[in-house]
Amino acid sequence: MSVEKCEFKPNVLVVGAGAVGSLYGGKLAQVGSRVSVLCRSDYEAVKAGGIAIISHWGDFHFSPDRVVRDLGEWAEPPDYILVTLKVLPEIDVADIIANAVGPETAIVLLQNGVEIEPAVARAYPDNEIISGLAFVCVTRIAPGRVEHSDYGRLVLGRFPSGRSAKAERLRTLFEKAGVPCEVTEDVVAARWRKLLWNAPFNSLSVLGGNADTQKIMQVEEAVHLARVIMHEVRLIAEADGHPFEPNAIERNLAETRVMKPYRTSMLVDFVSRRPMEIEAILGNAIRAAERYAIDTPYLKTVYALLKLIESENR
Amino acid sequence: MSVEKCEFKPNVLVVGAGAVGSLYGGKLAQVGSRVSVLCRSDYEAVKAGGIAIISHWGDFHFSPDRVVRDLGEWAEPPDYILVTLKVLPEIDVADIIANAVGPETAIVLLQNGVEIEPAVARAYPDNEIISGLAFVCVTRIAPGRVEHSDYGRLVLGRFPSGRSAKAERLRTLFEKAGVPCEVTEDVVAARWRKLLWNAPFNSLSVLGGNADTQKIMQVEEAVHLARVIMHEVRLIAEADGHPFEPNAIERNLAETRVMKPYRTSMLVDFVSRRPMEIEAILGNAIRAAERYAIDTPYLKTVYALLKLIESENR
Repeated sequence: MSVEKCEFKPNVLVVGAGAVGSLYGGKLAQVGSRVSVLCRSDYEAVKAGGIAIISHWGDFHFSPDRVVRDLGEWAEPPDYILVTLKVLPEIDVADIIANAVGPETAIVLLQNGVEIEPAVARAYPDNEIISGLAFVCVTRIAPGRVEHSDYGRLVLGRFPSGRSAKAERLRTLFEKAGVPCEVTEDVVAARWRKLLWNAPFNSLSVLGGNADTQKIMQVEEAVHLARVIMHEVRLIAEADGHPFEPNAIERNLAETRVMKPYRTSMLVDFVSRRPMEIEAILGNAIRAAERYAIDTPYLKTVYALLKLIESENR
Repeated sequence: MSVEKCEFKPNVLVVGAGAVGSLYGGKLAQVGSRVSVLCRSDYEAVKAGGIAIISHWGDFHFSPDRVVRDLGEWAEPPDYILVTLKVLPEIDVADIIANAVGPETAIVLLQNGVEIEPAVARAYPDNEIISGLAFVCVTRIAPGRVEHSDYGRLVLGRFPSGRSAKAERLRTLFEKAGVPCEVTEDVVAARWRKLLWNAPFNSLSVLGGNADTQKIMQVEEAVHLARVIMHEVRLIAEADGHPFEPNAIERNLAETRVMKPYRTSMLVDFVSRRPMEIEAILGNAIRAAERYAIDTPYLKTVYALLKLIESENR
């Protein structure tokens, strides 16, 4: 038996082959995993020609093992289901993946927001849930065509916490493919830390009238608003048992000030008239705050305004 | 001497002959007042042909006594200066009217917002300041052309409070011209009452992505946000000595729900890329709240977002 045969080459099913799913599914395929994809809007293009990925890590082509429109007839349960769907109230992940989940399948939720795992964990109490965060600038620029312009680091961790051999194996694969990947034993804390930035900057980018990060940082009142929203996120995360380091807010603001102008995912969705992840990014945080009896007027204001602007936009 | 000659026909100078100034200046001219106008952007058109007013009260034409670009050479101080300029940090009313104010001139501030009078009152401590509110839908549709589509009631009152013979005389003139007009002894209270509606609905109309009142009222979270902003305005007005009737907020919301869809003045300014009265409508309220140590997170959030969106818009 050759060394190569001994390597771990799992079967992977990517559910939602948009920008994020195509990039990370494609990287796993590059190192020998058998990667199939479920995709809807771009099914024809991907089925016919796979996915071209223009990446700052090097361009490559991703030819999925199978391309399907639904999982109606899925025979062989994959080792990993990589869920890269947007988090929207109308998308029921547990239901979508039902036909593909086997007893040994790990469900990897590579999605935005906080508290997005419990519904899936409740539906699959005997499966391992791996929660994941992608720090990446990647955009679907046409059917079957994805542009990965910057960043790309992943953070993975067993939900709700703890060590995970399956997450470690996935990390090994990603790193072999050149994807920076970290495994954490407290992925919920990592989600709150990401929300510290996402909650204010996604909101302000849309409500501020198509504002990139640099424009936001140029308006004193906007920076102050970002700061007080971050303070509310900090209080919720602390109540949830995940305190931040003391200077987390100011460090985040300072980093945002020097980074190149960035348009948030919510802004990109908004200008494309696609649904925004308002509930995942803000609604879930506000509901957590209510659980802990924390008042969050700043979060609630941007949440309400986003609900209003979305009702106008769609 | 005929009866007509005995009537009070004051000299009036309208400063800022936009939509509001043209309508009310024109109505005073209809009943015999000598009305001159200061106008800048539309000077040529108004000088040449006066102002055509299409009004639901009946169309009419307003030929000002004099049309000027500035008050450099103003000889005869008017009985009333009717200031209908927008309230913006870069517009110094006291300075603009300086050459026209005589010892008997009453300065009428027919403008939006709260706490807009003190700067003018300080500059002219010996002149009567009449503060005024216009409840009117009126728009300048072209140079020298104004459309008055709905409402039109005025509320006038001596600033800071009390009876005023000059306000009463002005009311008599307006009523003779068919303009519903009320004189109040507490015009500051009237300004806070108007702000109760203006603060939430101006803000939400712009930040909600071009939302008229009907669209705002259809989104539950937006209605709730309007309510909590109104609650903050109520607290400030109370601290300032001007309590509202107990059901003021719910009555305002109920009336807004049944009124025909309305686009706020701030929204109209925003979509025309003109400056919005953010400071007059929100900034002054927040500064009053700070004076009384009242926390206003909802007002401060919409204020910061409006400052951001304005920085994008201009």
